[in-house]
Order: sequence, then structure tokens, then C-alpha cells
Amino acid sequence: MSAMRLFGLGALAVLLGLDCLARLLRWRRGGPRALLKEVLFFPVDVTCVEHLFRPGEALPNSCPCPLPHGQETSFTRLLRHLLSANTSLDLCIFAFSNQSLSRAVLLLQARGVVVRVITDKNYMAISGSQISALRRAGVNVRHEMGAVYMHHKFAVLDGRLLISGSLNWTTTAIQCNKENMLVTEEPDLVQPFIREFQRLWDSNDPARHCPHG
Amino acid sequence: MSAMRLFGLGALAVLLGLDCLARLLRWRRGGPRALLKEVLFFPVDVTCVEHLFRPGEALPNSCPCPLPHGQETSFTRLLRHLLSANTSLDLCIFAFSNQSLSRAVLLLQARGVVVRVITDKNYMAISGSQISALRRAGVNVRHEMGAVYMHHKFAVLDGRLLISGSLNWTTTAIQCNKENMLVTEEPDLVQPFIREFQRLWDSNDPARHCPHG
Repeated sequence: MSAMRLFGLGALAVLLGLDCLARLLRWRRGGPRALLKEVLFFPVDVTCVEHLFRPGEALPNSCPCPLPHGQETSFTRLLRHLLSANTSLDLCIFAFSNQSLSRAVLLLQARGVVVRVITDKNYMAISGSQISALRRAGVNVRHEMGAVYMHHKFAVLDGRLLISGSLNWTTTAIQCNKENMLVTEEPDLVQPFIREFQRLWDSNDPARHCPHG
Repeated sequence: MSAMRLFGLGALAVLLGLDCLARLLRWRRGGPRALLKEVLFFPVDVTCVEHLFRPGEALPNSCPCPLPHGQETSFTRLLRHLLSANTSLDLCIFAFSNQSLSRAVLLLQARGVVVRVITDKNYMAISGSQISALRRAGVNVRHEMGAVYMHHKFAVLDGRLLISGSLNWTTTAIQCNKENMLVTEEPDLVQPFIREFQRLWDSNDPARHCPHG
């Protein structure tokens, strides 16, 4: 009887040890599922991105456009991340003129994703800006009223994924400049941006800046 | 005897379990020492930063300047991080005109920290740029020769700490703009910036752009 108990306890100890070891190794790798941490550098060569907007269709091979097809670049990665939003997109952007990024935001809006945009009061009016196209499509846009420049270039998707860096959402930045974008789900980095977005959103509520009566 | 063995094994199992639990909790908190992950937002109010440059002295209370003293802001945090470099500073910066940040880089250079700077070919020459002051002090500076803008704003300290965001190293950015800086030791985020810096450093070697004979 005591030999049985001893055997049982021994087996328990071994199982416990193995379980703890497995958990330890999992945590060492960054948790049950590793949090996304990715860095994108620019400029990139121009490639066809049509297949990202029509994932169910027989693209990219059948697309007739003259651009290179089927290539993964920092820009296709950025577009893929952006288009992965399911519930919300909070975008805080100094300059926004790139048409593919605008198309992606409009697609999200059409899908029912709650899109909020904060932008710069001067740069939203420059030639090629996509801000008025977003507004026409019903996207909720506010512009910064209290700073020289609203110079941020960040987006938070689904309150979970942060995209932030030096890159304005312009074609020059994407195709001609040396730029970076950091993409992460790390909560210690994402949460401060969520709070800052809400702070800027609230402080630039147009209702607060239009005294009545 | 079997009771003693049973007791011993039971105690071992409990100890093993507790040990594993403690390790688990430590890993959950991000490892033996949590990796730094910090976000700084701007603008900030101007405060005295003299004490950061003379840590051994009786500042900040005795500093006679008219600015507020002893206040921690995003800018003092940025300066503290910068001044913590022990061996190397790799700085990739579009616009650099802030005098306190320039003073910090010069102080690091004087301490023997290996400083390398990559900057933009047009912005390095604008009024107030600190690039020529850095060059005069012997800092190794290269400017980007292959892009419309060298628009990065990042620094890597001691091959370990990344500082990156929307903020150019200008007084307007620090005191007047809405800006962000992300500070992290997360290797998955730091390493790509180290590789990109070296790539840009090598590709902008002036020796490669001066054909001989």
C-alpha cells in the first residue's frame, strides 16, 4: 500500500515538474501566443496590391495592371495589417494622401468598422489629401486645434494592434523616403497610444470650440 | 520509514510546485528583469534640464535660471535615456536643431561614447541645425544620398535601447507639436533598427560616392 502511495506521489511530482517546465518554456517564448512585434522599413518598390482588396478572387495572377504581382513588401504588410481591423480603427495622422491606404480605410468603414481620424488642420487641406474623401464617406474626422503640428503617425486597430513610426500616409513617404513603421500588440506600448488618442479626440471635439448663445 | 519517505516526497512535490509557480509569475511579468517599454508624448512645458547634465552637483534647487525646476516631463525622460548611453549612440534623424539634445550628444562624444549620426541632406543645412556643431566636435556624420527624405527619427543606445517615433529633435517638435516617442529594449523591435542603421551607414559611405581616377 505504501509502495503504491509512493509510486503515486512520485508520478505526481514528475507530472507537476513536466507541466511547470512546459509552461515555463511557453512563457519564455512570450506567452500562450507570442505578441506581434514587427518593424517595417521604407521606401518600397511599387507593386500591385489589388489582391489585398479582393481576397476571394483569382488575383493576383489574373490582374492586368502593369505593376509587379505577388510580391510581399513593407507596404503590402502595412495594408494587410490595416485591413485586418474587425471592430475599430483609430488613426492619428499628420499627412494622408496615399490612395491605397485611403481605399483601405474606406473599405473598413463600409464593412462597419468604427473609424475615427485625427489629423493636422493645415495638412488636411493640401493638394491630394484624402481627408475630405474620408469625410464624404461618413468617416468621423477631427483636426487638432491646439498644436503647431499634429505630427503623429499612428493607428490603433481593434484596441489591440499599434502601427506607429516616422511614415506619413503619403505616396512619397512609401516610395521615396527612408521611413520606419513599428507594428506591435505589446500592451505596455499599445495602451498609452489608446489613452492619448482618446485624450486628443476629446480635446478636439468641435462642440467644445463653438460657444453657443 | 515509509511514512517518512511519504512525508519527504510530499514536501518535495510542494516545494517543486511553489518554485515553478514563482518562476511562472516572474516570466509573466516579463522575465527576470522586465524589458523597458515606455511611451513619451509631446508637447511638454519648458523646464530646467541643467541638473541632468551635472548630476553630481547641488542642482536643480540651486540653479538660478527662471524656468521651473525639478519637474519630470517627456523631455527630461528622453534626455535621461539619451545620457544613459555608455558605449554607443547610433542616431538616424531627419531634423536636429534642439540645443539640449545637441549638448547631450556632445557630452556623450566627450565621454568616449562612439557616436554615429545619419541625417537628411537638405535638412542638415537649415538654419539652427546642430549637425555642423556635431561635425566640428568630431562626431561621425553621414547624410542620406539616395532618398527624397531621410525621414527616420530613431536612436539606438549601446545596441540595446531603441528610441523611435514621430518626434524630430527640434524645439518646435518638443514644445509645440503633438508627437510621440517609443522607448524599448524589446530585442524583436531593437534588432531590425540596428540592422537598418548599419545598412544606411554602409550605403551612405562617402568613399563609395567619390569615383577615383
